[in-house]
Amino acid sequence: MADLEIRQSTVEDIAAIVEMLADDPLGAQRESPDDLAPYRTAFTRLEQDPNQQLIVAVRNAEVVGCLQLTTIPGLSRRGATRTLIEAVRVRASERSTGLGTQLMQWAIEESRRQGASLVQLTSDSLRADAHRFYERLGFKGSHVGFKLSL
Amino acid sequence: MADLEIRQSTVEDIAAIVEMLADDPLGAQRESPDDLAPYRTAFTRLEQDPNQQLIVAVRNAEVVGCLQLTTIPGLSRRGATRTLIEAVRVRASERSTGLGTQLMQWAIEESRRQGASLVQLTSDSLRADAHRFYERLGFKGSHVGFKLSL
Repeated sequence: MADLEIRQSTVEDIAAIVEMLADDPLGAQRESPDDLAPYRTAFTRLEQDPNQQLIVAVRNAEVVGCLQLTTIPGLSRRGATRTLIEAVRVRASERSTGLGTQLMQWAIEESRRQGASLVQLTSDSLRADAHRFYERLGFKGSHVGFKLSL
Repeated sequence: MADLEIRQSTVEDIAAIVEMLADDPLGAQRESPDDLAPYRTAFTRLEQDPNQQLIVAVRNAEVVGCLQLTTIPGLSRRGATRTLIEAVRVRASERSTGLGTQLMQWAIEESRRQGASLVQLTSDSLRADAHRFYERLGFKGSHVGFKLSL
């Protein structure tokens, strides 16, 4: 397999990222890959926030994975900085190749580099495979993730 | 009871906030109210990030509650902005007075004001009372919250 590059996303990557977000039983119901305008607006906000990183994995000049890492300073745990991982996606053709692990390892290393003492994420209770994946990486499913739609 | 004010925190509130963070079976093991230096450093980082709000509830000129609200732009869900709630604490003497609900309602209203379409938080699986509290506010415990200590 060709080498993988993990890099910051650019506006040129939006369509490929949205395609991955939509290619998922849960995502299919809530994304609109035919209308990229709201994603472009959101990308501008992401780009302007130094505590957000939307990264992509690229192989053969194609975007095959993505992940968003948010840095959150806080007072709890002796003023610990934590990071939050969202929107982990791997293109269907690349599943079970270790790409998800590489993306997550990038996020964990980047969190360390920033001096964070905790990495957190939530995963839908229906995604049993994802839970095993995060546990293999050392995460503990010690919390309940609550969501309120507005 | 005297009127409650909910406002942005200032550096003068740090000691009272840390006292609340430490006054908790889980927090007691991981906070250091006798050494505020790391909290002051973290407060400076919080203040400089426009997507962080650490708010306090004040009654009779005393800090009796706190909550941190983080605004997170993203591409998922048609470019939805979400907010994250952390560090919800209510002083022991003020529990069961509705103060926690007022803090959460502030956070939900502020999330709406910012155009967020989702509010999220995680709660330790051991905090059964807290889970019922969040469910009463309309939150659904649909996710597993994973944490990795670095």
